[in-house]
Amino acid sequence: MEAAIVKAACAIGAGIAMGFGAIGPAVGEGNAVGKALEGMARQPEMANDLRTNMILGCAITESTGIYSLVIALLLLFVF
Amino acid sequence: MEAAIVKAACAIGAGIAMGFGAIGPAVGEGNAVGKALEGMARQPEMANDLRTNMILGCAITESTGIYSLVIALLLLFVF
Amino acid sequence: MEAAIVKAACAIGAGIAMGFGAIGPAVGEGNAVGKALEGMARQPEMANDLRTNMILGCAITESTGIYSLVIALLLLFVF
Amino acid sequence: MEAAIVKAACAIGAGIAMGFGAIGPAVGEGNAVGKALEGMARQPEMANDLRTNMILGCAITESTGIYSLVIALLLLFVF
Amino acid sequence: MEAAIVKAACAIGAGIAMGFGAIGPAVGEGNAVGKALEGMARQPEMANDLRTNMILGCAITESTGIYSLVIALLLLFVF
Amino acid sequence: MEAAIVKAACAIGAGIAMGFGAIGPAVGEGNAVGKALEGMARQPEMANDLRTNMILGCAITESTGIYSLVIALLLLFVF
Amino acid sequence: MEAAIVKAACAIGAGIAMGFGAIGPAVGEGNAVGKALEGMARQPEMANDLRTNMILGCAITESTGIYSLVIALLLLFVF
Amino acid sequence: MEAAIVKAACAIGAGIAMGFGAIGPAVGEGNAVGKALEGMARQPEMANDLRTNMILGCAITESTGIYSLVIALLLLFVF
Amino acid sequence: MEAAIVKAACAIGAGIAMGFGAIGPAVGEGNAVGKALEGMARQPEMANDLRTNMILGCAITESTGIYSLVIALLLLFVF
Amino acid sequence: MEAAIVKAACAIGAGIAMGFGAIGPAVGEGNAVGKALEGMARQPEMANDLRTNMILGCAITESTGIYSLVIALLLLFVF
Amino acid sequence: MEAAIVKAACAIGAGIAMGFGAIGPAVGEGNAVGKALEGMARQPEMANDLRTNMILGCAITESTGIYSLVIALLLLFVF
Amino acid sequence: MEAAIVKAACAIGAGIAMGFGAIGPAVGEGNAVGKALEGMARQPEMANDLRTNMILGCAITESTGIYSLVIALLLLFVF
Amino acid sequence: MEAAIVKAACAIGAGIAMGFGAIGPAVGEGNAVGKALEGMARQPEMANDLRTNMILGCAITESTGIYSLVIALLLLFVF
Amino acid sequence: MEAAIVKAACAIGAGIAMGFGAIGPAVGEGNAVGKALEGMARQPEMANDLRTNMILGCAITESTGIYSLVIALLLLFVF
Repeated sequence: MEAAIVKAACAIGAGIAMGFGAIGPAVGEGNAVGKALEGMARQPEMANDLRTNMILGCAITESTGIYSLVIALLLLFVF
Repeated sequence: MEAAIVKAACAIGAGIAMGFGAIGPAVGEGNAVGKALEGMARQPEMANDLRTNMILGCAITESTGIYSLVIALLLLFVF
Repeated sequence: MEAAIVKAACAIGAGIAMGFGAIGPAVGEGNAVGKALEGMARQPEMANDLRTNMILGCAITESTGIYSLVIALLLLFVF
Repeated sequence: MEAAIVKAACAIGAGIAMGFGAIGPAVGEGNAVGKALEGMARQPEMANDLRTNMILGCAITESTGIYSLVIALLLLFVF
Repeated sequence: MEAAIVKAACAIGAGIAMGFGAIGPAVGEGNAVGKALEGMARQPEMANDLRTNMILGCAITESTGIYSLVIALLLLFVF
Repeated sequence: MEAAIVKAACAIGAGIAMGFGAIGPAVGEGNAVGKALEGMARQPEMANDLRTNMILGCAITESTGIYSLVIALLLLFVF
Repeated sequence: MEAAIVKAACAIGAGIAMGFGAIGPAVGEGNAVGKALEGMARQPEMANDLRTNMILGCAITESTGIYSLVIALLLLFVF
Repeated sequence: MEAAIVKAACAIGAGIAMGFGAIGPAVGEGNAVGKALEGMARQPEMANDLRTNMILGCAITESTGIYSLVIALLLLFVF
Repeated sequence: MEAAIVKAACAIGAGIAMGFGAIGPAVGEGNAVGKALEGMARQPEMANDLRTNMILGCAITESTGIYSLVIALLLLFVF
Repeated sequence: MEAAIVKAACAIGAGIAMGFGAIGPAVGEGNAVGKALEGMARQPEMANDLRTNMILGCAITESTGIYSLVIALLLLFVF
Repeated sequence: MEAAIVKAACAIGAGIAMGFGAIGPAVGEGNAVGKALEGMARQPEMANDLRTNMILGCAITESTGIYSLVIALLLLFVF
Repeated sequence: MEAAIVKAACAIGAGIAMGFGAIGPAVGEGNAVGKALEGMARQPEMANDLRTNMILGCAITESTGIYSLVIALLLLFVF
Repeated sequence: MEAAIVKAACAIGAGIAMGFGAIGPAVGEGNAVGKALEGMARQPEMANDLRTNMILGCAITESTGIYSLVIALLLLFVF
Repeated sequence: MEAAIVKAACAIGAGIAMGFGAIGPAVGEGNAVGKALEGMARQPEMANDLRTNMILGCAITESTGIYSLVIALLLLFVF
């Protein structure tokens, strides 16, 4: 019974960590991508620079999403 | 009974992970797509570039949605 | 009793996954469609391009909604 | 008693799936319809095109609402 | 006792389905109607077209409200 | 005791259905009425048309509020 | 004990129905009244028409508040 | 014990009804009063008319607050 | 024990009634006061009129806050 | 045990009353103070009048915060 | 056991009172400080007056934060 | 067991006090800092004054955050 | 068992303190950084000053995040 | 059983800490990245400076996300 309670809590915890942890990065990246596309439409000759920086910025923003994934995976397989 | 509690918790956990994890990416992508379409209407000659970058940006934004899917599938079939 | 608890949890989990997972894609797509229609009214000659890209963008945005559907169906029939 | 718990959970799950799943599509479609009507008032000669695309866009947005309906019906009659 | 639990859950489920399912369509339709009235005030000669399309758009938006009603009625009388 | 649980659940369910179901229509109608009054102040000669369409639009928006009332009444007297 | 549970649930249900059901109409009417006053300040000669229509619009918006009152009263005295 | 449960539920129900029911009218009236004061500053000669209509509009908006008060008082003294 | 449950419920109910009931009036009055101060800065010669009407408007807005206070006091000393 | 339950409920109730009751007045006053400072920067010669009215308006807004304090103190020492 | 329940409830109550009671004043003061800084940048010669009034306004706004602190301290040491 | 319940409640209470109490000050200070930086970019010669006042304003805003910290520490070590 | 309850409560409390306490500072700092970058793009010659002040402002904003970390660490290792 | 309760609480606590702690930094960084891209599109010659400062600002904003990760990892492996 003890192992079952821990496993059940891990399942719920992983669900919370990934479910809510996916909201922020995606909203933030959507905002960044939207601004990049807005800038490209206005300054076509900056399109390459904007794309490079957009990917860089999204990679930074993605980090907390990856932390959530790591915690969720640790809860499932290691803890 | 033990296996049942774990399975029940996995079902709830997968529901939370996918249910809330689907809100962020979709809102973010909707924002990005909206900005891309706005830009296309203003700068028709940039339509191809904007579409390419929109797909790229959405692919990045989609990532946390896919993490949620992965965690939900792991909760259902592996954990 | 054990099977009943698991089935009950699956029903609740599927409800959460689909109920909340339907909010994001629909709001995002509504935003994208709104921007496309705004663009068509301003640039009638771009209407075809905008429609094509709107459908493409909505298809990408729809993806997390489909993930939610998949998880809900898996919870109901496979798990 | 076992069947009763499963049926009760299905009833709650169907309520959550449809109750929350109806918020997103309706808000999104309301947004799209509003933009279409705004465009028609500005560009009367585009009214037919805008109506066609509005219906198309709403049909896409409606999809997650229909997914919610499907999950709710499956919870009531099949599960 | 078993039938009572199922009936009680149906009552709660129907309340959730209709209570929250009524928020989205009404807010969306209010938005669409507001835009239509705004357009009529600006373009009086488009009033008939706008009214027709407003009713069409509201009918589409109403759909998820009707789904909620259907699920609530099914929970009360059929399930 | 069984009948009491069902009746108690009906009372709570009716409260949820009507309490939350009253938020959406009223906010939506308030928005529509506000836009109509704004239009009347700008285009006094359109006041009659705007009033007619405002009432029509509000009647459509009211529908989900009436659905909520119907479900609440059914929960109290029929279920 | 049975009657007590039903009465207790009615009290809670009436509280939810009226407490949340009062938020929407009041916010919506406040919005409508605000727009009417804004219009009167701009078009003093329309003040009578705006007041008449404001009262009409508020009466329509008030309807869901009255539904909530009806359900709450039914829960207290009839159910 | 039975009377105690009913009285306890009445106390909680009255708290919910008045606590949440006070949010809407006050926010709505604050909005209406703010618009009236804004209008007075712009059109000093309309100040009397605006004050009269502001009081009228606030009286209408206040209605759901009074409904909440009535339900709360009924829960405390009559039910 | 019975009296204790009723008193405990009164304490919680009074806390909910006053705690949430204080949010609305204060936000609404803050809005009204802000608009009055904005108007005074623009039209110094209207300062007296605006102050009078601001106090009048705040008194109306305050009413639901006082209702909350009344219900909370009734829960503490009369019920 | 009975006194303990009442005292515990008073502690929770006082926490809710003051915790949530402090949000509204402070946000409202912050809004009013911000508008007053904005007005002072634009109309330096009105600074004294604005300060006087700001304090008056804040005193009115503060009232519901004081009601919350009173209810919380009554819950702690008198009830 | 009785003293423990009261002390536990005091700890939770103090946490709620201070945790939520800190949100409002800080957001309100941040708004006021932001407006003051905005005004200073536009009207450097008003900087002293704005700072004095900002501190005065923040002191008023702080009051509900201090009420929360007082209630939390009373819950910890006096109650 | 008694000491354990009190300590457990203190731990939860401290978590709530600090977790929610950190949201307000940080959001408010972020707003103030943002306005200060905006002002510096527009009026470089005011940069020193703005920085001084920004720190002063943030110190005032920080106060409720420090109150939360104090309550959380008191809950952990003194209560 | 007693130590287990305290440790479990500490774990939940630390999760709440850090999880919610991380929302505010990050949103506030993101706002401040965004304004700083906006200012740099407009006034390139102010870039150094803006960066210095941005770091200073973020350090102040970070403080409540650090308080949350401290409380969480104290809950884990000292309490 | 004792160790199981502590481990279960750690799993839930880690889920809350990382799940909610990931929302803030990602939204804040998305805001900062969006402003940086906006600035680059307007001032292409500032692109390098903006990127450097964007990374610096994001690193500061990331800090609370990392605190959340640290607390979650401590809950899983050290506590």
